Parts: sequence; C-alpha cells; structure tokens
Amino acid sequence: NEMTSLQAHPLEILSNMASEWKLDLYSEEFSHRLDKQNLWPSNRHKFHYPKLKHLPNVDVSLVDNPDGDSVYMCGNSLGLQPKTARDYIDKELDKWAKIGVFGHFEGELPWAECNEPLKPAMARLVGARLDEVDLMNFLSVNLHLLMISFYRPTATRFKILLEEKAFPSDHYIVESQIKLHNLNPESCMVLLKPRENEFTLRTVDILRVLEEQGDNIAVVLLSGVHYFTGQLFEINKITQAAQAKGCKIGWDLAHAVGNVELNLHDWNVDFAAWCTYKYLNSGAGSIGGVFLHQRHFEVSKLKKLDGWWSHRSDTRFQMTNKIEYEMGASAYALSNPSMLLCSCLKASLDIFDEIGIENLRKRSKFLTAYMESLLNKKFDKNNNEFSSIQYITPKNPEERGAQISIRFASNVKKVHQEIEKRGVVRARCPKICTSTFIQHI
Amino acid sequence: NEMTSLQAHPLEILSNMASEWKLDLYSEEFSHRLDKQNLWPSNRHKFHYPKLKHLPNVDVSLVDNPDGDSVYMCGNSLGLQPKTARDYIDKELDKWAKIGVFGHFEGELPWAECNEPLKPAMARLVGARLDEVDLMNFLSVNLHLLMISFYRPTATRFKILLEEKAFPSDHYIVESQIKLHNLNPESCMVLLKPRENEFTLRTVDILRVLEEQGDNIAVVLLSGVHYFTGQLFEINKITQAAQAKGCKIGWDLAHAVGNVELNLHDWNVDFAAWCTYKYLNSGAGSIGGVFLHQRHFEVSKLKKLDGWWSHRSDTRFQMTNKIEYEMGASAYALSNPSMLLCSCLKASLDIFDEIGIENLRKRSKFLTAYMESLLNKKFDKNNNEFSSIQYITPKNPEERGAQISIRFASNVKKVHQEIEKRGVVRARCPKICTSTFIQHI
Ligand SMILES: Cc1ncc(COP(=O)(O)O)c(C=O)c1O
Ligand SMILES: Cc1ncc(COP(=O)(O)O)c(C=O)c1O
Repeated sequence: NEMTSLQAHPLEILSNMASEWKLDLYSEEFSHRLDKQNLWPSNRHKFHYPKLKHLPNVDVSLVDNPDGDSVYMCGNSLGLQPKTARDYIDKELDKWAKIGVFGHFEGELPWAECNEPLKPAMARLVGARLDEVDLMNFLSVNLHLLMISFYRPTATRFKILLEEKAFPSDHYIVESQIKLHNLNPESCMVLLKPRENEFTLRTVDILRVLEEQGDNIAVVLLSGVHYFTGQLFEINKITQAAQAKGCKIGWDLAHAVGNVELNLHDWNVDFAAWCTYKYLNSGAGSIGGVFLHQRHFEVSKLKKLDGWWSHRSDTRFQMTNKIEYEMGASAYALSNPSMLLCSCLKASLDIFDEIGIENLRKRSKFLTAYMESLLNKKFDKNNNEFSSIQYITPKNPEERGAQISIRFASNVKKVHQEIEKRGVVRARCPKICTSTFIQHI
Repeated sequence: NEMTSLQAHPLEILSNMASEWKLDLYSEEFSHRLDKQNLWPSNRHKFHYPKLKHLPNVDVSLVDNPDGDSVYMCGNSLGLQPKTARDYIDKELDKWAKIGVFGHFEGELPWAECNEPLKPAMARLVGARLDEVDLMNFLSVNLHLLMISFYRPTATRFKILLEEKAFPSDHYIVESQIKLHNLNPESCMVLLKPRENEFTLRTVDILRVLEEQGDNIAVVLLSGVHYFTGQLFEINKITQAAQAKGCKIGWDLAHAVGNVELNLHDWNVDFAAWCTYKYLNSGAGSIGGVFLHQRHFEVSKLKKLDGWWSHRSDTRFQMTNKIEYEMGASAYALSNPSMLLCSCLKASLDIFDEIGIENLRKRSKFLTAYMESLLNKKFDKNNNEFSSIQYITPKNPEERGAQISIRFASNVKKVHQEIEKRGVVRARCPKICTSTFIQHI
C-alpha cells in the first residue's frame, strides 16, 4: 500500500509496483500504467507548456509529434507560466485603465498593498508565521538588505561561512558586505568545500567547521538547495549548530522554495530570501521573498536601511518623517510594491496553495527517483558513445529536491545538443559537464 | 509669432493670442479655439483616460457626460496607462508561454537584458550618455545603493544636506545611512528650510548653506522637482556649488523625470535615481532608474554592494565568482531585470521618445500657466466660501514643472470632495491644504 510505505525509497515502491503489475520497470508500458493510476496527480495542465515545434533547437524530424509538449526540465531556471497569470495581469491593467490612481486602494489587489494577499500562501510554503514573510524587491537586493542587519562584524566575530561554489551573486554579496566594513574578504570568507572526489557537502563536515571556527563566524549564508549540485541541505540541523556557536544564519532559498518542504519558523532560521521565477513560476526577474524570524521583529535594535515602506502602513501617508517601523519582515520593504509582479505571482501561489507543498514534494520524489532509474538503465553498461555518467546530486531522496545533475565523462556538448533537438529543455550550465533534470509540476 | 516669443511668459503669449482673436482669455470660447489651433499637440489619445462614470467619488448628476474623460491631474502620483502597454506585456507573456526559458535570449525584449532596449530613450530623457543610465530595482532601493557608494563620512566631512520636507523615503534613507556609520542623524542631517512665510527654497539660501557648511557636507541629496511644492530646483547651479565645496551631489528625480528637461551629464551631477510610475506612466510600483556620471565609472574604487548583475554581461554566465564590473550605471544592478516591468515601461518611453521632452515641456508650460490664470480669475475677489488661495508652487514657469500646488485658507477637505465629485483626480495629500494640478500629457 502506497500510503504506509512512504518511508521506503520511492524507487523501491516503484519496483514493487512494477513486479505487482508484472511489468518491466523500464518499459513504456509501466510508465503509461503509472500515468493511468494517477497516484500522484499532475498539475501540468495548469501551466503553458512550450510546444516542441516552437523551441529554437528542436529538430522536428526527430520528434513524434511537433505539436506536442516539450520535456520542460528547466523549472530550476525559469518556471512555466500559470495559465491564469494573464487574467490576473489583465485585471490590474483593466483597473489601471478604468480608474487610474484609485487602483491603489480598490479591487482584489489594491496596489498600495498588493503584496498582502500573497503573504498567506507564501508563509505556508516556507513554514512561517504570516508576519515573518513578505514579498519585495529581488533576491540579491534582499540578501543585501538582510546582511546589512545581520553581518555586524566585531574584532573576534567577523567571518562569513558560505559554500566555495556558492551562486555567484551570493559570493559577490558576501564579498562586498565584507569590504563594506573595510575587512579583507580573503581572511573573512570561510568556504565550504566537498571532500576530494565528492561533489556535495557532508553535514558532518559543515558542523565540524562550525565547531572549529564558529566563534569567529558572524553569519552563515548557505543555499537551501544548491543551484548546481541539487543538494538539499539539512537546514534544521545546520541552523541549530550555527546558533549554538553564536552565529546568525541566513538561507538563500532560490532553489528550495516551491521545491521542498520548509519550516523556517520552527527551524529557528534567522533570515532567508528567495526569488519566485524558478519553482514559483512568476516570470523572469519577478519579485523576491523575505523571511525574518519573529525573534528579530524589534528591528529598531538592528542596523538597517529604511524607506517609506518600512514605515507602518496605517500612518505611512501622514508623511511625518518620523519612522515607526512596520511589524515583521515588512520592515525590510523600502519601496511601494509592484502590481504587475504581485499579480503574476498570485496566479502561481494560488496553485501551490491548492495542491499543498507536501503533495507536490511526494510526486516530485517519485518522478525524480523514476528518472534516476531510467538513467541508470540507460548508462549501466557503457553501451554508448557517452560512456559512463556520474551523479552529482545525492542519491538519497531526502538530500535532494526535484533535480538530478549528472556529469558525463566526455562530449557533454553533444549530449546537450542531442537532447535539445528532441525537445528536452534544461538549465544551461556553460563549461560544466552537467545536465539538470527537473520535474517541478 | 509663437516661435519667436518663446522667451516670454507663456501667460503673456496666451493673453496676446486672446486679444488677437478678440476673445476673453477666461472664456470657454478661447479654450476651444486653442484646442482647434493645436499649437502644442496633445498626446492624451495615447493613454487610457479613466471615464467619469467609473471613478469612485464622481457624482454623475454633476457632470455633463458621464461617459467622458475624467480630469486626470494625478500624473505626479500615478501616470495613466499607455494604450500600447498591454500589447507589450502580452508579447512577453506569449513568448513565455511559447518558448519558456529561451525567452531570455530571444525576441525584441530578451529578458536577460530586457532593460537594454529602454536605455536609449531613458538616456535622452535625462540628458545622459547611454552607459550613464540603467533601469533596475525601485527608487528607494537605488538611492540606498548609490548612497552606500557616495556617503563615506570622515571625521570632518560627515553631513548630508537635504530638504526639511524631503519625501519621507528620502528622509529615512538619509537617516538610516547615517546610522549605518554609527553617527547621529541629528548632528549629521542639515535640513534646508524655506524662509518664514515662504513655501519654497531660494537657490541663494541653498548656496549660502553650502558656502557655510559645505566643508562638513559629504553628500547633498535633493529632489529635482519637490513632490509637494512642485518647485523645480536649479540643478545645474546647485550641483556646481556643492562640488566646488567638495561635496558629492545626488538628485531624486521622481517628480522631475518626464516632467522637465534634464541634462544630468552636462550638469556634472554625481548620481541620480527616479521612479517611472509617475510622469513615466509605467504602472504602480514599476522599475526604477539610475544615473551614474561617467567620472565615477571606475566603481572598483568605490564601496558598493555587488550582485551577479554587477558583473560584465559577456562573462557573467561563466560563473567564476571573480567579479569583473559591468561598465557604467549598470554596475549598480544586482538582480536580473524584470521582463514585465521593462515591457510596460517600454510602451511609455516609446511615446516620450517620439514626442521629445522639449515639446512636452513647451506644452506643459502653457497648460500650467493657463491653469494658473483660470485659478487667479476664479479666486480673485474672495467671491466664494473658500476665500482666498495661496500659491505654494513658484509662479515663474522656469522654477516649476507641470504642477500647481495651492493652499486654501479653510475647508480644503470640502474642496477636495467637490472637485472629486466633478471628476477631477489629484494626488491625495492628507492633512495638507494643497491641491496638485498636473497636466502631463
Ligand atoms: C520624491 C520621492 N522619493 C522617493 C519616493 C519613493 O519611491 P519608491 O516607493 O518607488 O521607492 C517617492 C515616491 O513617490 C517620491 O515621490
Ligand atoms: C541561488 C541563487 N542565488 C541568487 C540568485 C540571484 O537572483 P536575482 O538575480 O534574482 O537576484 C540566483 C538566481 O538564479 C540563485 O539561483
């Protein structure tokens, strides 16, 4: 029974089903039967899937049906458009045309507070209290705003712990924050490296570095799911260990939000930020999300950058120039929110709220494991020109999100070309022998 | 002849025309004749004007034609929607639906650089070199990013000069920047106040403060056009004076851009920032603009916050984590640009580029002067319950933009209610006896 065996590896469950149905796990028949059973309902019909014939690099002679959907494995780079997004946007454009400035205070998404209706779903998705989250700005901007509060180096505690292969923006954020204090990035950045011949970080190694250097570490800034390896970090455990050593800890959840279950409040995370254009499907360069733990709500005790949107909304327009902070994460807002970005994100958050991240994650685990088994089968005997593959992403479903990154011993460019010709869309990682497989919906 | 008499006060020109046509300047006939002559062509047909019957506070029994346009005098708060905006947005939504992530590098507005096609029109509008401007983030955010570079207090030079009645966000920005350096806002903020019984600042007074305190002033942060008084500052003269005393000077152009002619490069302004949802009609909470003078392009010499979008675009995706700065204002970008915000702003910038700001400004001067004359006429004899009015905005057309703020001796709430009933839309200034009249198109 599927419900009781959830603890088992999803691949084991799939194998059991295959033998029960007397089908080969690797057969097309099995996959069709899986589809028909609809055990983990799909939601792809709620999104605009690019058609094969429209993609720039597809060779239509190589695909069965050019009018069919592409194989979109790129939600980790840019999510697909919710079919309702245009309606949401149109509604706001209609309102703007119809009543101009009055739109600030009228309709379902009054622009002056168009972030507000998004907060309940956003809070549920990251496991936060309502006032611990807000939507504002963009990811790198928000990380800076939060780092300004949380990175307050002292003579003894001045380092920042991050991954050696952190996403470039995070690396630059840390570097420039350190320089802001006239400190030297080389002596202040503690870079976590995987062990030799390994691709991902072991939690024990992170904890060891914290144990050894934690007293000098002011802030730990890690990614919840690593953009490149797909590793899902043990956020809870690492947060506890960092805080036990007196460090503040923030998480870049760009690749974690909408992908895996999060419990930021209970995990006692200090702060976090994310973008919404990947798994959250809100369109290129859309609005960012911010988490500030309730413990830090007395922001007047923190150094921070202020704007008129940091001011309490109920007295904001009295224009007194005496700041009274908004309560919670919202105190980090500086500018009035964008109605276009909020309306587009609303379309997507509605879907997440309807499905529930725990259901999405369940489906995602099965799809990812199934993909892995098919890859194993394909490459088990060095029976093709690409020789063997290496998994970069952890094999344990609890240590990864909806992503498998693999490394080809050679010829990765050819692999990319060939799969693109057949309509497989994946994140482009130039110079890196990796293909990222994502099943986000 | 209209062309040769441009130096004259626009009201003088209008009066001359009235007497030439043998019409009363204040008659409806005169205004119709003006319309017919079309001397300063209108562009209102390019925008969605809210209809009287749709506005929340209109009393349709008081207006001639409820299907007609409202009197939209609120472009200083939220500009109207360009009729082409929806097409621009739809095009990007179509692309997203059709090709997903490939939209980053395809089409007229490739998302990865969707700010680029906006830069030429933006640069022309503010009088800048192409690489001195960029579109990114939001106004308050950008002011902070720039202040982090330009406000570097020393033991002798640590003050910031701003208006006593600066816009709240600017006030908070300055305050929090000062606190960031562990300095005391009270002793570091130099607040410019108008003389007794005056509403606006005299340039001589600003220059005097600079002369007296300039040696201690690190940064001057002023608004190009004041949000409340409508005063247009002598940006050129003040910039020179500030720099002569060794200060850096930045301008908040929220109410100046798209309203008056600007020559930021020639005026040698250090930095500037603006929003685009007012005179630039890009929708509530849309993208902000940034100006960095060419003299400051060696940003590696400045303290600044970095993100992956600060990195040169041609090597950005090599993901090396070794920053190489983008040349110009773009080095201040942190996050990837928003395709929705850029596409909406593009619709509006196209219109500005087609008309030319000098033509728009010419029309705006006549309309503003004409409005002023009608107000004078209306209130010349204390012949109504509202008694007299006082002008807050300067009378000299060169010292103001497309705005007239007036103060009523009493009963301003009633004035607001009555004009709203009749379909006049204006910026809401709670607790302040002011009405802002804007003719921006
Ligand atoms: C003069 C001025 N400065 C700053 C702001 C703040 O703009 P934003 O909310 O886009 O940061 C405004 C907004 O109206 C403004 O008028
Ligand atoms: C892990 C991570 N951090 C930061 C960023 C930067 O995001 P933004 O350009 O929205 O600031 C990204 C973008 O892909 C990311 O994946």
